[in-house]
This record gives sequence, C-alpha cells and structure tokens, in this order.
Amino acid sequence: MINSILYLVPLLGVVGLIVMAFKSAWVSKQDAGDKNMQELAGYIADGAMAFLKAEWRVLSIFVVFAAALLAYSGTIHEVNGKELHGSWIIAISFIIGAIFSATAGYIGMKVATKANVRTTQAAKTSLKQALKVSFTGGTVMGLGVAGLAVFGLGGLFIIFLKIFNVVEVDSNEMKTAIEVLTGFSLGAESIALFARVGGGIYTKAADVGADLVGKVEAGIPEDDVRNPATIADNVGDNVGDVAGMGADLFGSYVATILATMVLGQEIKVIDAFNGFSPILLPMVICGLGILFSIIGTWFVRIKDDKSNVQNALNLGNWASMAITVVASYFIVMYMLPDGIISLRGVEFTKMGVFGAILVGTVVGAIMSIVTEYYTAMGKPPVNSIIQQSSTGHATNIIGGLAVGMKSTVVPILTLAAGIMGSYYCAGLYGVAIAAAGMMATTAMQLAIDAFGPIADNAGGIAEMSMLPPEVRERTDNLDAVGNTTAATGKGFAIASAALTSLALFAAFVGIAGIDAIDIYKAPVLAGLFIGGMIPFIFSALCIQAVGKAAMDMVQEVRRQFREIPGIMEYKAKPEYDKCVAISTKASLREMMMPGAIALITPLIVGFTFGPEVLGGMLAGVTVSGVLMGIFQSNAGGAWDNAKKSFEKGVMINGEMFYKKSEPHKASVTGDTVGDPFKDTSGPSMNILIKLMSIVSLVIAPFIAGKTFGERPNHGQGAAYVEMHNHCEKEMMGKCDMSKCATMTKEQCAAMCDSMGCNPTEKAACMGMYDADGKFIGKGEKACCKDKEKAKAPEKKACCKDNPKM
Amino acid sequence: MINSILYLVPLLGVVGLIVMAFKSAWVSKQDAGDKNMQELAGYIADGAMAFLKAEWRVLSIFVVFAAALLAYSGTIHEVNGKELHGSWIIAISFIIGAIFSATAGYIGMKVATKANVRTTQAAKTSLKQALKVSFTGGTVMGLGVAGLAVFGLGGLFIIFLKIFNVVEVDSNEMKTAIEVLTGFSLGAESIALFARVGGGIYTKAADVGADLVGKVEAGIPEDDVRNPATIADNVGDNVGDVAGMGADLFGSYVATILATMVLGQEIKVIDAFNGFSPILLPMVICGLGILFSIIGTWFVRIKDDKSNVQNALNLGNWASMAITVVASYFIVMYMLPDGIISLRGVEFTKMGVFGAILVGTVVGAIMSIVTEYYTAMGKPPVNSIIQQSSTGHATNIIGGLAVGMKSTVVPILTLAAGIMGSYYCAGLYGVAIAAAGMMATTAMQLAIDAFGPIADNAGGIAEMSMLPPEVRERTDNLDAVGNTTAATGKGFAIASAALTSLALFAAFVGIAGIDAIDIYKAPVLAGLFIGGMIPFIFSALCIQAVGKAAMDMVQEVRRQFREIPGIMEYKAKPEYDKCVAISTKASLREMMMPGAIALITPLIVGFTFGPEVLGGMLAGVTVSGVLMGIFQSNAGGAWDNAKKSFEKGVMINGEMFYKKSEPHKASVTGDTVGDPFKDTSGPSMNILIKLMSIVSLVIAPFIAGKTFGERPNHGQGAAYVEMHNHCEKEMMGKCDMSKCATMTKEQCAAMCDSMGCNPTEKAACMGMYDADGKFIGKGEKACCKDKEKAKAPEKKACCKDNPKM
Repeated sequence: MINSILYLVPLLGVVGLIVMAFKSAWVSKQDAGDKNMQELAGYIADGAMAFLKAEWRVLSIFVVFAAALLAYSGTIHEVNGKELHGSWIIAISFIIGAIFSATAGYIGMKVATKANVRTTQAAKTSLKQALKVSFTGGTVMGLGVAGLAVFGLGGLFIIFLKIFNVVEVDSNEMKTAIEVLTGFSLGAESIALFARVGGGIYTKAADVGADLVGKVEAGIPEDDVRNPATIADNVGDNVGDVAGMGADLFGSYVATILATMVLGQEIKVIDAFNGFSPILLPMVICGLGILFSIIGTWFVRIKDDKSNVQNALNLGNWASMAITVVASYFIVMYMLPDGIISLRGVEFTKMGVFGAILVGTVVGAIMSIVTEYYTAMGKPPVNSIIQQSSTGHATNIIGGLAVGMKSTVVPILTLAAGIMGSYYCAGLYGVAIAAAGMMATTAMQLAIDAFGPIADNAGGIAEMSMLPPEVRERTDNLDAVGNTTAATGKGFAIASAALTSLALFAAFVGIAGIDAIDIYKAPVLAGLFIGGMIPFIFSALCIQAVGKAAMDMVQEVRRQFREIPGIMEYKAKPEYDKCVAISTKASLREMMMPGAIALITPLIVGFTFGPEVLGGMLAGVTVSGVLMGIFQSNAGGAWDNAKKSFEKGVMINGEMFYKKSEPHKASVTGDTVGDPFKDTSGPSMNILIKLMSIVSLVIAPFIAGKTFGERPNHGQGAAYVEMHNHCEKEMMGKCDMSKCATMTKEQCAAMCDSMGCNPTEKAACMGMYDADGKFIGKGEKACCKDKEKAKAPEKKACCKDNPKM
Repeated sequence: MINSILYLVPLLGVVGLIVMAFKSAWVSKQDAGDKNMQELAGYIADGAMAFLKAEWRVLSIFVVFAAALLAYSGTIHEVNGKELHGSWIIAISFIIGAIFSATAGYIGMKVATKANVRTTQAAKTSLKQALKVSFTGGTVMGLGVAGLAVFGLGGLFIIFLKIFNVVEVDSNEMKTAIEVLTGFSLGAESIALFARVGGGIYTKAADVGADLVGKVEAGIPEDDVRNPATIADNVGDNVGDVAGMGADLFGSYVATILATMVLGQEIKVIDAFNGFSPILLPMVICGLGILFSIIGTWFVRIKDDKSNVQNALNLGNWASMAITVVASYFIVMYMLPDGIISLRGVEFTKMGVFGAILVGTVVGAIMSIVTEYYTAMGKPPVNSIIQQSSTGHATNIIGGLAVGMKSTVVPILTLAAGIMGSYYCAGLYGVAIAAAGMMATTAMQLAIDAFGPIADNAGGIAEMSMLPPEVRERTDNLDAVGNTTAATGKGFAIASAALTSLALFAAFVGIAGIDAIDIYKAPVLAGLFIGGMIPFIFSALCIQAVGKAAMDMVQEVRRQFREIPGIMEYKAKPEYDKCVAISTKASLREMMMPGAIALITPLIVGFTFGPEVLGGMLAGVTVSGVLMGIFQSNAGGAWDNAKKSFEKGVMINGEMFYKKSEPHKASVTGDTVGDPFKDTSGPSMNILIKLMSIVSLVIAPFIAGKTFGERPNHGQGAAYVEMHNHCEKEMMGKCDMSKCATMTKEQCAAMCDSMGCNPTEKAACMGMYDADGKFIGKGEKACCKDKEKAKAPEKKACCKDNPKM
C-alpha cells in the first residue's frame, strides 16, 4: 500500500511533464509569422538565453560553495552533547534542488520565447486563437514547474528512504531523510531568490530605461523598433516574469510540501501506510493537483473577440480549485486513519485536516479576488488613481501609494483568520496542509500567470513589426488581463508564503528545541524589530538597483540616438545587443547584495543570539515581508492599469482624456515607479520570507540550546537568580521559591528532585534554609519578610544586621 | 524627604512655565514690522485660532463621551472574580490630560503666530537676530510643553496620593492612584493623535493645494500673496507643525514618564523615600531636564550671516543632553538605594539604572545623527535623489522611496541594541528609564523642532510682503535647517515611542496577568499580522485624506483665479478665508477614521481574543509603526531638501540646474509626495503606537484571564488535552505526563499536588492508571508504548483490542 502511493507521487509528476511535452510541441507547430517577426523573436530568444547562461555561471559558483558548506555540516554528528542526524547527502539534495529550479525557469522561458511570436501571428486571426496560443504557452510552464517539483520531491523521497534504510516514521533514519530533503528545498529557494531578484532587476531596468528615453524623451510609442532598449525590454519579460517567476513558484511549491512533511513526520498514527500518511498526504494532494489543473485548463476558452478573457481564466481557476477541494476530501478520508490524531499536544481528526485544506483554498481564493479588485481596470481603486492623475504626477503617486497600503487590510485579515481557522481545524499540521491545499493548483495558477508576459511580448512584436492596429488591440486586451492575473498570482504566492512560513516556523521551533518565542523578552523583541526591517532594506536595494541599471540603460539609449544617425528614420538599426548586455551585467551585479542579506542574516542572528531571538526575527520578517509584498505588488499593479486605462480614454471631471494628455503623463510616472515595486521588490518578498525560514530550519540543529540575554545578575544574588531563571522556566512562576517558604527543607528538596533540577540548582535552593532547616529566603527579601507591618527604619536595621541573608 | 522631592517635581514644572512666560513676553516686545506684514500675520493668526477652536469643539464631544465610559469602568470592582482597583476619578484625570494637551498646543501656536512676523522683521537686520527671535519662539513652546507635563503629572500624583490615602508603594491604594494617573496620559495621547492627524492633514492639504495650482499651474512662486491658498498654507504650518507637534510631544513625554512609574511601582526597595524612589526617579529626571534644556538654549547663538545655524542648534542639543546624563548619575546615586533592586525576577543595581539612562541618551543621539544624515542637504542620500531627478519624476520618486526604506536600517539596529542594552542594565525598568532619559531634554528638542515652522512662516510673510531678496535668503537659510531639525525631531520621537511602548507593553503584561506573548501560538501570530497591518491602513487613510483635501483646495483656488478678475495683477485680493475654511473642514472630517482605528482596534481585539493576542497585536503595531514612521518621515525630509537644493543650484552630470529646470520640476513632485509622508502619516506613527498601548493598558484589568484559540480537543481526549494544556503551561514540557509513566500512581498524585493542579486536572492525571494502579497512558499512545520495536500490524491489532485505551 505504502509503496503504490509512494510511487504514485513521482508518477503524477511524470504525467504532468508528458502533457507538458505535448502542449509544448503544439505551440512549436503554430505559425511563427513572417521573416521580420521571426527575426525580432529571435533577438528576444537569444537575449533571454544569454541572460540565463550568464546567471547560471554566477549561481553555479554559489551552489558549489554552499553545497560544500552543507556537506561539511552533514558530517557534524554532535553539538553541545546533542546528537545530530544530518548527512553529507544534503549537499547532493541541495544541488538537485538548484538544478531543478533552474530547469523550471528554463522550460518556461523556452516556451515563452516561442509562444510570444506565435501569439502575435494568431492575433492576426482572432482573439480566441491568440488566447489559445498564449495560454497554452503558460500551461507548459505551469505543468513544467509542478511536474518537476512533484517528480523531484517524490523521487528523492523514495531514494532517501532507501539510502537511509527508513523503516519507521518515528526513527532517527527518518529524521535524516527529511533533513536531507530540506536541502532540495533550500537549493530550489536559493536559486529562486536570485532568479526572481536578478530577473526582476533585468526586466525593470530595461522597461524603465526604454520608457524614459523612448516614450518620454523621443516621443515614440512603447515597443517601437527604433528604440535600442526595446529588445532588452522584451527579453526582460521573459527572464523576469517567466523564468524568475517559474523558479519562484517552484520554490514555493516545494517549500510548502516540505514544511507539511516535516510536521507530518512528528505525527504518530496507525494507518494503512505504515504511519506515513501525514507525510505522504501533501505530496499526493499536490500531485493530483496537477491533473486537476489540466482539467481546469479545458475551461479556459472564449467564443469571439468580444468575450471576456478574465472571466475565462477565472473559470479555469475556480474549476481546478473546486475539483481539488472535492478530491481532497476523498484523499484525506482514504489516507488518514480514523480517530484522534495529535501533534504537539493539539488533537484533531481527519475531518479537521480536510477542514484546513478547505480553509487554505478559501484564503487563496479571497486573496485572488481582493488583489483583482485592487488592481483591475474599471474598479474603484484604479479609478481613484486615474482621477488623481488629473492634478499631476505627485497626486498620482500619492493615490497609488494609498491604494497599495489600503490593499493590505482584507488580505491580512483573511490571512489572520486563515491561520486561526486552519490551526483550529488541525493544529500546526492544519496550517501547513492549508498552504499545501492552496498550492495544489500551482500548475493552473502559473499557467494564468505566465500567459501575461507572453501576451505582453506578443504585443511588443506586433508593435515592432508594425502590424495592423487590430492585432495590437487584441494583444493589448490580453496584456491588460495579464497585468491583473500577474497581481492576483502575487497575492496568491504571498498568502501561501505566509502560511508556509508559519509551518516552517513551527518545524524550526521543534528542531531548535525551544518551547516558545516570547516577544515579551527584550532580546526577542529586538529580533522582531530587526526582522521587520529586513524587507525594507531588501526592497530598497531592489528598487535602487532598478534605478541604477535603468540610468545605465538611459545613457546607452541616448548615446545610440546621438551617435547612430538614421535610427529615427528607420534607416539604421539600433544596437539591441548592447542594451541587452547592460541589463544582464547590471542585474547580475545588483542581485548579490539582497541575496546575501537573505542568506546570511539568519546565520548571524542564529549563531550569535540563539534560536529564540532568531524565531523573533523570522516572525518580524514574515509579517513585514507579507505587508510590503502586498503593498508593493498591488500599488504597482494598480498604477500599471491606471496608465493602461488611458489607452481607451478615461473620463475625469466630465472630460475625456487619452494617451499623451497631461493626466496620462502623470499616469506614466506612476507606472514607472510601480514597475520595480510590482516586478522586482514586491514579488521577491515571499521568497525572502521562505528562504530565511528554510535557512533557519537547516541551521536549527546547530544552534539548539543557545540562549542570549538571559537575566543578568549582580553578585550576591547569583545563585538565586540562576535557580530562579531555571525554575521559572520550568514552572512559570506558580511553583517558584515562594512555595519553599511554606515547605520544610526536605519537602523543598523533594520538589527540586521532581522538577529535575540539577545539583547546582538544588544547592541554591537548599541555601535558602539556615543550619536548623528553617526557611530564611535570600538577601533582603528574607530579611524583610514582615515588611507589610514593619516600619522603614526597622527594615533598614534588619538588613544591616543580616548582611549575608 | 519624600515630601520635599514630591513637591519639587511640580515646582520644576512651574519654573519652566515662568521662564516660558518671560521668553514669551520678550518675543511679543519685538518689532512686528509694517502694517502690511502685520495684516498678513493677522490673517495667519486668525486662521490658526479658528482651526483650533473648531477642532476643540469636535474633540470636546469625544472627550465627554470617553470620560463617561472611563468613569463607568471605574465603578466596576470585580471581573471574573478578580478584584479591580479602578476609580471613577480616572475620568477627571483623563479630562485634565486632554485639556493640558490642548493647552500645550495652544501656547505653541500663540507664540508661533507672534514670532513668525517678528522673525521676518528681524531678518531685515541679520541672520543672527532672526535666529534669536525664531528660536526663542520655539523655546517658549518647548518650555510650555515640558512645564505643563511635569507640573500636571507631578501635581496630580500628589493629589491622588492624598485622595486615595496612599501610605505604602505595595498597596492597593497605590495601584488605584497609578491607574487613575494613566487616565491623564490617555487623555493627553488621544488629543495628541487627533491634533497631529488633523493638523497634519490641514497643513499638507493647504501646502499641496497651494503648490499644485500656484507653483505648477499659475507659475507663481511659493507663498505668493496672489495665491488664495497661501494663507491657509501658512496657517497649516502653525496648526500642524506647531500645535500638532506640541500635543504630540506632550503626549510622548507624559506616556514615557508614566510607563516608568507603572513599572517602578512594582519594585520593592528600602530607600529614603518610603520606597517611592523608583516611581519618583523619572519625574525628577524629566523635571530637572527642563532646567538643563534652559541651559542648553544658551548655546544656540551664531556670530553673523555666515555662521552655520545647524551647528549652533546641535551644540545646544548636545549640551543639554550631556548635562542631563551627568546630572542623572548624581540623581540616581542619591535617590536609589544601594544593593540589589529586583523587578520581575531581574536583578540590577542603581549603577545599572544609570547605565540604562546612558543607553537611552546614546540611542536618542544616534537616531538624531542618522536622521540628519539621511535628510540633510549636501549629504549623499539627498544628493542621490537630486541626481535621479535628472531622468524625471518617476526616478525622483523611486530614489526618495529607496532612501526612506534604507534609512530604517541603522535606527532599527540602534533601537534593537538599545532595547537589549537597557534591558541588560536594569531589566524592564531599564528600558523604561532609558526612554525617560532620552525624553528628559524634550523642552530643548521641541525648541529646535518648533523653530522650523516659525522660520518657514517668516519666509512666507517675507515673500507675501515682497521684501528684499536678502530677507528671504535669511529666512530660507533658517527654513532649510528647520527641515532637517524637523526630521531629526521625528527620529527622536519615534525612538522614544518604541522604548516607551515596550515599557507600556511590560506594564500591560503585568496588569493583564499573562506570563508570555508567544508568537509561536497561531492566534498570537495572527494578532501580530493584524497589528503590523494597522500602520499601513492608518498611513493610507492619512495620505489619502491629504490628497482629497488638496483636491478640494485645488478646485477652490482654480475657481478664485477664474471668477475673481485681477488677482494675478495684484488688483484684487483673493478670498483667503474660503481656503482656510476648506482646510479646516476637510481635516476635521478626515481625522475621524484613523483616530477611530487607533482607539477601537485594541478594544475589539482585547475583548474578543484576550490579552495575549492583544499583546501580539501591540508588538505588530510597534514594529511596523516604527518602520513606517522612520521610512515616511525620512523619505519626506529627503525629498523636501532635494527640492530645496535647487534653489542654490545643483550639479548633475557636470551641468548646473536651478529652479524651474526640468529636474527641479521632478524634485517638486517628490516634495509634494513627501509632504503627507513627513508631516501627516509619518509623525502620527509614534502616537498611534503609544495610544494603542495605553488603551490596552487601561483595559488590561478587564480582559485579564481571557483566552482564545486554546488547543481544540475532540471528544475522548478532552480531559487529557485540558490536563496537558494546563500542565504544559505549568511545567513547560519537562515534567509532563511522560514523567508519570515512570511513577507510581501515588507519586504522580503527589506531583500533581505540588504543581497546584486543580481537582479536574488531577482526576485526568489519575485516569491514566488502570484499576491496578498501573500506568496505561491514554489512547493509542498507551496502546503502542513499545512502538520502537513493534511491527505495524501488531500495533493495529493492539489498538483494535483496546478501543478505549
């Protein structure tokens, strides 16, 4: 039984990959248009490939270095007398995770650079056909990511079970297997961070640079073939919004499943799967989610040019979610045993586990709906920004910032309710499985997400090839929907990251051997502050990197306009490759610092201040990161669509405004500010959160038991303080030394024994009795026992006379 | 002894108020310039007064309503069987706090509207004289605020000691006195919130509105007499930056002292003050701080027009801080007893208390220096914004946002170190007294702070009266320094708010009767998320309010330009009063919602979810509020000075740019976005943080013991879960039921007794033994005790055979 389920998981991954191959072949077979279009598409594909190769070169150094460190850590078998269960194989696991993550990005990019020009060609015929091509491209990406993740995790899990001879769930061998599997997630998430940040910087540097000189200075339209940065801009859509996002969601998907597995491993049940059902459950649900996503894609179809594309995508999304929920019920009922399941003192039933999955799906759905509301054209938030564009650049910016900040309210309340709800249903396992349920339809989510940049590219190629306006109109229609789906995808990703982080958090607490993360303790609160600050500096570095790289791009474009005569008259070709090279170089340079912060901070804080302060920091990063992620993604999305609204014309105070009007110029400013927000820093937040949690999880065994900032003591009270610290921790106040005041020395000694106090502590306790076995307490406290009645001078005299008491 | 010190405190307040009266008289005696200047100044003074009166009318309704609620709460003497120590007198205390806070704002505004025109007149002579008048105006405000606070707190404390017949520190009477005194702080902070938010909306609506139509559309300079909104703009400086800030710092000052007193009350010492020294200490230090601030003002003087004004102000600031630190040493040594002082299990000495004060002062100093670095002209951050203005509005905005986000790093690290350091020195009392030490020189801080808007106004009057350019140059010099001091003042305020909040937090934990705020618990983490979100929605509402009100203003100014012929030719006077009325109405309307959020959220969360979740929420608000406060204040300050830099001309890529150049226009956009950031939402953050903490503190006794989201249980395991929950809390795992597995039934019973378990819990414990007294554990756990060795089928059989185990 266990074996059939065990092998089912990677098999489902393979099924996803096979369907992907068919879809990919279908895309390749479509008409790629005329020679000019193909040439332009070729530039884009080459530029994207060049970037990926350059990025991989840099990252491979990092991967080798990190793998060596991990291999070394796996050879440590004892820290502070505590046995560790690591293995050097974690390094292999890490490398495989990194390679799979890079491959996920590669698959997406490869198909996207094929689908873009084919979408343009299809748009010559109809919107229906254009949607079909672009969405199939997106589907390839979605299935590739989900398929690789499920295949990788499932396959490695089988291999590790064999390598480490795991027989039972509750065994050291199993602990090793799970710990080694964590390496896979760490590898995936590390690459995701760099891919997202690097790709994000690339795409926005090119975009902002192209816009600033092209649209604003030279007055030529977006994606004009005369703009030297336009190819770089289109390459950016592929490396940032496709490859970056693919790696990102691959990482999220893996981390979510893994976090559930780690917690599941702590659960002891008697089931038909040798006790493995809580571990297998998230893999099975996510594996089957691939099939349900494929079913969902069937619903994405429109009738004609007048059909609503957004509705078609939504229908597919809801369909795959609904099927997942229904199927989850049967999977949970089949796999988990009847009766009480318990994790860390919380008891629940399998019905509770299903409840948690339901909660997770509902949270995901609400996040999507809310994000759509805040970023879609025609809705009040975007309209408010349009209205505020009439009074200039500044009010447009103020409007967008306000929309972004306000858009945090409902998602956060939803998330808070989701945390409480899923925890209520099935404890921490519930929180983790809720995230897994939410992520089960990642393939579908990603298909919807990736279709956006393909459509965006298709529009670019249409513009550059100077195709008739109705073609551009059709691709613009798709592109506008793509902006909203990009935003909803980000909302979804951030929600799942928050839930996953909490699950990773819980796993971290367990492995680090702490009972609580008490923010009432000063050092933990300090950790919370530092954690909260990290998303701010991370965001600042990201958007600043975009600013810097965009400036380089602006200088280069200006130079080409100046030095290459005839560009504006279509007589000379701009040097596209120089702009591509600038973006590539700048993004690789600028992604280092933010990446380093995410990776190194947990190490410093963990090894210096111990697990509880690190826990406080993780909480700070999570809360602040979720907020900054939602704020930035939604503000950016809203600005973008406010600008896009001008293309069809908008009504402000009874007057119609179109492109090139003053309000439109203001809206372009907002869009430019929003670009790094929504495509660089905003979507990096969820990786930041998860990566820091995973790093903490990996180092948890090494920092277990470390403390910092324990109560200071000064001289005479030392022993008492030590005792007090220990016993307060043990007994939380109620059973403290005041108890001994009413006990005989023997009774107190017995209590010490039953508490498991060590000899020093017991001695300190015994020191509170005088030679006759009478309780005297310690210091002035003992001295002034009757302080309620005593007068001040008497108290003082008493203390003076008994200096040693 | 105690009496002389007790009476010293309000006396020091009176001294401050007397010096203030002399300085105020000196300002009044200065030449107020020609008739035209006086007329313009009259408009400003009248507008400011009209706003204050309208605001007070609205707030008086709130105060009466809140006071009635408080009076009622004071009559409740028991909640859930727990005795409460409130009194209806808290309502009186609250009303006095509100009145004092309003008075503090009034004093500042009164002197500022006198000092402004007199500074203009003095600027005709020299920069030295202009600085003297404007800084003396600021000093009046500083002394007024500090004097009122110390007088009010000290005076009320004496009165309450008498009313409640307090004899001992450790008595219920004392608890009542302190609780009633909390009302004073609540009153002050509530008014502060509305004054800051209302005033902030007013000033920025007028400023942004005036700029958008005047500077951008009509092309007339700032503060031009032809601009209908120019008087409203200048009124705004007074109601927002002076009255609002006065109420704000009054609230901060009171809250900080009070938080230290609340914690001090828990300390039991034998001293020369009948045990009152830890309570009196913060009042004495802050009282004497008034004298040291007066000394500090003597250092603020310059030689001639070429002297550096910033340095003069810094010298005064450092001087008063240094004197305070040195004096604190002697005060602490004199007042506190030798030997160990202990608070909640942390032991420290009086040397530690002094150490904490030192830490607090250093934190305050670093915060000021860092803020100055990020917002001052000529420093790299402001220069980077200037450079980025060359590529347009969008890059200017991106640059400013990045500077603001980056500027959180050092302050947060400083704050985190400060929290750890002061806690290490003297536990939670150390954290509180560190804040008090930092706030001791509030009078000086505020003098420096309030001088800015006075200089700003002086410049406005100079422009409107069309005085010679050298006059405007002198006031501009002062104004630029004022921008930086405003930012540093905000940095200082936010740091003190963070430390104060932690102290209030600690006081809250004590009164609410919880042992920890454990973010590892799902509901507490949910609270943390919700708390983190509040500063975002609060900020959004504030900046949106500014946007809305500014739009109203823009419409009105456009209408006047259109409908009143001859304005532009100086032939007709604009209707200044209409613009004043618009700002007044809009700000009062828009301040309601953010104020309500701050006041009501703690009530909802506290009464629904209990104190631990509320604690989590407070932590979230504090961390996120501090970050958003620093981010917004510094971004705004940097944008403002980037714009100001163009007045003297800036070098970008080897070319000089001045006012009206394209980069300058971009910098105006940044400044306009920054206006609500730095003067409305940013500085409101620290009040938000403290107000929510104080509200929580006030309701703490009523929600004590309430819990939410405790471990759910399902049927058969109920008793066990209950026992487990209880005992886990008591014994934190080590002594849990697994201990009983190795004990006889009798031993287990004895352990239960020694733990203080109640009968139900003990029964649950005893239920884990069978009839023969053999330990069987519970459910499947007992069934599968030998699981390490057992095979799966055997386990299942075992469970089947023993369904009830």
